[in-house]
Amino acid sequence: MQGNFVYNNPTKLYFGEDAMKHLTKELAGYGPTVMLSYGGGSIKKNGVYDAVVAALKEAGKTVVEDPGVMPNPTVEKLYEGCKLVRDNNVDLILAVGGGSTIDYAKGVSASAWCEEDPWEKYYVNQGWPSCKIVPVGAVLTMVGTGSEMNGGSVITNHKAGFKIGKVFGSNVFPKFTILNPRFTMTVPQYQMVAGFFDIMSHIMEQYFAGTGDYTTDYIAEGLMRSLIHSSRIAVKNPQDYEARANIMWTATWALNTLLKCGKPGDWEVHMIGQAMGAVTDATHGMTLATVSRPYYRHIMRDGLPKFVRFAQNVWGVRPEGKSDGQVAAEGLDCLEGWMREIGVVMHSKELGVNEENIPAIADATFLLDGGYRTLTRDEVIDILRQSM
Amino acid sequence: MQGNFVYNNPTKLYFGEDAMKHLTKELAGYGPTVMLSYGGGSIKKNGVYDAVVAALKEAGKTVVEDPGVMPNPTVEKLYEGCKLVRDNNVDLILAVGGGSTIDYAKGVSASAWCEEDPWEKYYVNQGWPSCKIVPVGAVLTMVGTGSEMNGGSVITNHKAGFKIGKVFGSNVFPKFTILNPRFTMTVPQYQMVAGFFDIMSHIMEQYFAGTGDYTTDYIAEGLMRSLIHSSRIAVKNPQDYEARANIMWTATWALNTLLKCGKPGDWEVHMIGQAMGAVTDATHGMTLATVSRPYYRHIMRDGLPKFVRFAQNVWGVRPEGKSDGQVAAEGLDCLEGWMREIGVVMHSKELGVNEENIPAIADATFLLDGGYRTLTRDEVIDILRQSM
Repeated sequence: MQGNFVYNNPTKLYFGEDAMKHLTKELAGYGPTVMLSYGGGSIKKNGVYDAVVAALKEAGKTVVEDPGVMPNPTVEKLYEGCKLVRDNNVDLILAVGGGSTIDYAKGVSASAWCEEDPWEKYYVNQGWPSCKIVPVGAVLTMVGTGSEMNGGSVITNHKAGFKIGKVFGSNVFPKFTILNPRFTMTVPQYQMVAGFFDIMSHIMEQYFAGTGDYTTDYIAEGLMRSLIHSSRIAVKNPQDYEARANIMWTATWALNTLLKCGKPGDWEVHMIGQAMGAVTDATHGMTLATVSRPYYRHIMRDGLPKFVRFAQNVWGVRPEGKSDGQVAAEGLDCLEGWMREIGVVMHSKELGVNEENIPAIADATFLLDGGYRTLTRDEVIDILRQSM
Repeated sequence: MQGNFVYNNPTKLYFGEDAMKHLTKELAGYGPTVMLSYGGGSIKKNGVYDAVVAALKEAGKTVVEDPGVMPNPTVEKLYEGCKLVRDNNVDLILAVGGGSTIDYAKGVSASAWCEEDPWEKYYVNQGWPSCKIVPVGAVLTMVGTGSEMNGGSVITNHKAGFKIGKVFGSNVFPKFTILNPRFTMTVPQYQMVAGFFDIMSHIMEQYFAGTGDYTTDYIAEGLMRSLIHSSRIAVKNPQDYEARANIMWTATWALNTLLKCGKPGDWEVHMIGQAMGAVTDATHGMTLATVSRPYYRHIMRDGLPKFVRFAQNVWGVRPEGKSDGQVAAEGLDCLEGWMREIGVVMHSKELGVNEENIPAIADATFLLDGGYRTLTRDEVIDILRQSM
């Protein structure tokens, strides 16, 4: 824990089966016009939409409907949302959905009143908002991204061939989020499992970096162990409330800025996975799974002590009579075993990756230097080939 | 993770060797008059006072001096601080010191403009503020209580023979805290070690409760392991920045409301320890140490699975060929071994506890029902005797 840092996370979380009962009161703190942003309409089937609309009515709000936020929200949709906010002078964006919807809402929040092109300003050039920020509230219905308590916003520009994440400051974090584990139980198994791996990846990206002794790494180990335990229960019985609740809570803490405090982070798996997603439109968590499998084998020797620790503290690998390399490799065996057990996609060819589009994915991959090894383009291509 | 809860912790933390550089800018957000609350003057010897006053000057503030906050802040001092705030129309209370000073500042924050008697209203009757709250900022110089990022405020009434904690809501949390590990390095070894045990106790009070599977218990195990690791380094070399920084960060997360989310908590060790402190004026962390030793042996059978888990996950006790009771007891042996290793006071007779004042301590002890066993007064007396 050596570095200087600021921790400031003002998002208010309402957690549990009764969490929705707080929404009407919370809405009272904002102006009369609320933009209701959501995805493909699954919330209309599971009752969440009705519950949210009832709370909005009870709070006396004017509702601006903003449906159709797609799994990898596009820059075109971002512009559309900005226009809706301006045309209706929206006071609050209420995002109901998973990480894509909340990522999108944060993008609109910082972009609606932005004088410049937000794609260029925030995503391409990683600039900071100077305009009025439209507050965001959230009702989470899919677990994984951690978007409910951070400043992250990933937007895809298909024309440019890029999927880029911007991490906004705490003024763009959701002001509040409703976290009801029951709302996540109608998510299809494939999406649920992709979310589980997304959580694991968020923790590993922050864990596998730095050579110091960091309190947050101990917290990360605890979060991974909780996730591994509860995910094994949830894939067998998605209706297990305790498991789903623990996973929901783990997801929030996996990426709400705590784990990065005072230490470097890697994020290369996300860079490759996001590039894969931009080219194939595959589900985010599954891209991370197929990349992680070869990536961690590739960098293991560069951060060996941490991989040894991972094996022992997360997976309970016994070190007696083994070399560090053996212990570390055994830890990665355990990781892969768990991935198979919960049913993530192991091979990126199933996601649409092939010899033809690998160069495009490699070109769209940002090469970061925070982890144990800074990759070259050739190494990215190797990893992509092995991911197939 | 079964319960409903609200998590809302808006305290902004500036952490690291350079953290003080943020103070002047942070002060700009408050009105012109700042009450500077601190303890016995150690901050005048180690340069912290000068640094704070320089920042206050740079920010153009009028300073109201409020020295002399004692280790167990008294209700008389609380009244005195309230009068100072009212007489000077204070805009911000800047608490520079350890938990006692920040606890006191929060008490004054909620009490200065309170129409009723704050001791009766907040501490005896556990009521909620309805008056104007004076914002609190903090510069932490001693680690342990977690007061820097929560609503806790413990006040002692010697006349009544009570030391009572009130946990205020997030409107009374410090608005910001400066956490510079170097500021904690001049604390005498005795106080430093007492702080280490206070941290451990905060975690254990929340860990040893509830029978469900809770993500926060996994986080708690991580925090305990980090504390055990770093405290062993710090007692040998108090100038080890990494160890002191990790401990400072662990202390904050041990008691900033995260670990209690969605699960019950015990806090009986604090109840007995605070009663002991009210009668003997002993150092808080040391009272907790002497009570914990017999207390956890006493309740071990009532929460056996958690004690088994504690032994394995925190201390690495191997279960093969042992009964659960043996494993659990071995975990408590490890806890005691660590206590001796870091040098906490093991016997309360060294703190002034004797056969004569045990009944008074027992009478001042609140009996709580959140843990694995609700004690009777007779059991408290037994534990106090064994603590000697």
